[in-house]
Amino acid sequence: MQSFVYHNPTKIIFGVGVLDRTGAEASVLGKRALLVTGGGSIRRSGVYGTIRASLEAAGVEVVDFSGVEPNPKLSHLRQGIELAKSSGAELIVAAGGGSVMDEAKAIAAGACMDSDFNDYLTGKASLSAALPVITVPTVAATGSEMNGVFVITNDETRVKNGMAHDLVRPMASIMDPATTATIPLDYTVLAAVDIVSHATEGTLTQTDSETPLQDGLADTVVRTVMDCIQRLMADPGDLAARTNMMWASTLAWNGLCPAGIGPWAKPCHMLGHPIGAMYNTLHGATLSIVTPAWMEHQAEIDPARIARWGRSIFGLTGGDDRTLALTTATALRGWYQNLGAPLTFAQAGIQSPDLGGLAERSMNIARSKGEDKGWSTATLRSVLERCV
Amino acid sequence: MQSFVYHNPTKIIFGVGVLDRTGAEASVLGKRALLVTGGGSIRRSGVYGTIRASLEAAGVEVVDFSGVEPNPKLSHLRQGIELAKSSGAELIVAAGGGSVMDEAKAIAAGACMDSDFNDYLTGKASLSAALPVITVPTVAATGSEMNGVFVITNDETRVKNGMAHDLVRPMASIMDPATTATIPLDYTVLAAVDIVSHATEGTLTQTDSETPLQDGLADTVVRTVMDCIQRLMADPGDLAARTNMMWASTLAWNGLCPAGIGPWAKPCHMLGHPIGAMYNTLHGATLSIVTPAWMEHQAEIDPARIARWGRSIFGLTGGDDRTLALTTATALRGWYQNLGAPLTFAQAGIQSPDLGGLAERSMNIARSKGEDKGWSTATLRSVLERCV
Repeated sequence: MQSFVYHNPTKIIFGVGVLDRTGAEASVLGKRALLVTGGGSIRRSGVYGTIRASLEAAGVEVVDFSGVEPNPKLSHLRQGIELAKSSGAELIVAAGGGSVMDEAKAIAAGACMDSDFNDYLTGKASLSAALPVITVPTVAATGSEMNGVFVITNDETRVKNGMAHDLVRPMASIMDPATTATIPLDYTVLAAVDIVSHATEGTLTQTDSETPLQDGLADTVVRTVMDCIQRLMADPGDLAARTNMMWASTLAWNGLCPAGIGPWAKPCHMLGHPIGAMYNTLHGATLSIVTPAWMEHQAEIDPARIARWGRSIFGLTGGDDRTLALTTATALRGWYQNLGAPLTFAQAGIQSPDLGGLAERSMNIARSKGEDKGWSTATLRSVLERCV
Repeated sequence: MQSFVYHNPTKIIFGVGVLDRTGAEASVLGKRALLVTGGGSIRRSGVYGTIRASLEAAGVEVVDFSGVEPNPKLSHLRQGIELAKSSGAELIVAAGGGSVMDEAKAIAAGACMDSDFNDYLTGKASLSAALPVITVPTVAATGSEMNGVFVITNDETRVKNGMAHDLVRPMASIMDPATTATIPLDYTVLAAVDIVSHATEGTLTQTDSETPLQDGLADTVVRTVMDCIQRLMADPGDLAARTNMMWASTLAWNGLCPAGIGPWAKPCHMLGHPIGAMYNTLHGATLSIVTPAWMEHQAEIDPARIARWGRSIFGLTGGDDRTLALTTATALRGWYQNLGAPLTFAQAGIQSPDLGGLAERSMNIARSKGEDKGWSTATLRSVLERCV
C-alpha cells in the first residue's frame, strides 16, 4: 500500500424521505441559496418543491438557476456565477444529477473569483475560496455528492475539463433514493456504467502488488451495481435496488477506493471526455464505447490486474493472464450489450468520429494530469479505432 | 438498507514515515499539547521522540502524561483531566494503542467539564465541549483513530463503559504502519481478533435483508486481517501485512461497515467488557472467549446471517442455515486456536469466573445501550457457561 491522505468531511444524510432535511443543513451555512437545477423533470416529480419548501421553512431565501445540461457548459456556468454574485448568494444548493452538482461546484468557486472561470480551467488562475455547497443528488452515478471533483466543458473550444478541489467538496449531501426512481432506464444504465468505471479504473491501472482492501471494496461496489441494474432492467421501480445503487455510486468515488493505491490513472475517462465534449455524448455512453477497447490494449501491457478483476467479477478461470484479460474485455462488452449501452461510435449515433482529433484531445488530458506515461496520440488513436 | 447519517471528518495521514507530520497537524489546533502515552515501549522504540520533536519543531509545547494501562482506568483518567486543566493544554495528542487513544479522548472531554467524569459515564452529565484530539496509533486494533468511541473502566466499581461522542472524534490521525512492527505477536493476534469482531458484529446481528455493500466491505476487512495475521505469525516483521492490517482496523470501525444496516448490536463486546473490567483481561482475549459461544447461541435464533458469513469467510457449503451457523462457530474457534488466542476463561488465566456477576454486568450494558431485546441475565449466563 502507498502513503495517502484521506479527508472527506462531507456529511451524508441518506434514506427515503430525507429531502426535507435540506433546509436544516443549509440554514447553518447561509441565508440565501442559489438553487441550481437542470431541466423540468425535477419540478414535475415534486422533488424541487420539497427542497424549496424545506429551504424556505428553515429561513433560507431561494434564488433559482436552472437549465444545466449534460456535459455542463462554460457559457451556462458563467451565467450562474454572475447570478450568484449579483444575488448575494451565501451558499449553493445543487438538486439534480452529476452535471448539476458539477456545475454547482464550479459556480461556488467562480462566485469567489475575480477572473473568468476559464482561467482556472486552463491553469491560469487558482481557487482560493468557494461558497459552501450542498448537494441533493437525484441520479446515482457520478459520486459528485461526496468528492471535490467537477467536470466542465468549454463549449467554445469543445474541451472537457475534469477538475478537483477540496474547496468545493459538499458540506452536506441529502441522498434520497426515491428521487432516482423516476430516472428513465436508459439513463440508469449509463449511470451504472459510470459507477463501475469509477470503482475499476484505479484498481486496474495502479502498480502496487498488494491492496486487498481497496480491491475488495471496489469489487463489492461493482458486483452490487451489476446486480442492481439487472434487477432494474426487470423492474425500474425496485426501490431496494435503487437504494443500493445510490450508496454504491458514492462509495465508488469518494476517495476510499483509490486511497493507498497508486500511482493510478483514469484512461477510460481520459478517452471518454473528448467524445462527450465533441459530440455531446452522454458520459456513461462514452465509457461503454472505450473501456473494452482500452482493456484489450492494456491486456498486452499489464494483463495481471485485468485478469484479477475478471476472475473476481465474472468468475473467469483458466488461461494465462493475457488470455484472461482479453476474455474479461469480452465479458465486459457482453455486460454492456445486455444493458443496451453502446459499444461503438455508431451505436452512440456518431457516424464519422474524428479519431485523430479525439486522440489529440485525450493526449492533452493525459499530459495535464501527468498520466501520459506509455501513451502517444498514435496509441490513443489505435484504441479508438477498436471502437468504430 | 436503512436510513443513516455518515459524517466522519477525521483527516487520515497514512504511510511509513508520516510521524513527523504530527506537529503540522497539531499546530493549527493549539500551542500546548498534552501528550498522552502508555508504558515505556513507545520511548524505547523512538516513536515518542519523533512525535515530540515534530510537535516542538512546529511550535507546540509538550506536557507529558504517561502510564495509561490496558482497560484504561477512571482513576488515571482523572489525573489526566486534572493535568490538562492545570497545564492549560489546548489540545490532546494520543500516541499509543486503543487504550491510550480512548483515555485521551476522555481527557479531552473531561478537561471541558466541571463535574466528575464518572457523572458522564453514569449518564448524570452530558458533554458540551472537548479539546481537539490528534491520535498517533501504534497498534492496529480498535479503530479509535477514526471514530468518536472510547471505553473507560471505573476501577472502583469495576464497570467498563463504552461511550461514543462526535466531540472527541480525532481531528487528524497520523498512521505509520512501521510503528506497529514491534508489537509482540500475542498482542497482534488479539488485535486481529478485535478487528474481526468490529467488522462482524454488525453484519451478524442486523435485520435488514439486503445490504451487499456493507456485507462486502466487512467481509473484505475480515479476509484481509485473516490473511495478514497468518503472515505475521510466520514473520512478525512483514511490513506489508502490518500496513494492510492497520488500514483494515480503521475501516472496520470508522462507521462505514454499519452505515445503512440496522438495527444492529454488539453482543460480543457486551459479553466481553465485564470480563475485562473484572479480571483485567486484554480486550481481544475477552472476544475470542465469548464470540464462538455467542454464535452457537445465535445459531438457534437467527442462523441465516451467521451462515452467510461462514460461507463468505470460511468457504463453507452445504447443510441448512442452522447447521452452517454451528459449523461457522467451530471454524472461528479453530481460527482463534491456530492463533493461540484463548477459547475459555481458564486459557485466559481466569480459573473461577463469577458467571452470575458477569452476566448481570452484561445485562446492564445491554439495557444501557437498548440492546436488551431477547436477552436476560439467565440467557447471558448460559452463553458464558459455554466458555468455561
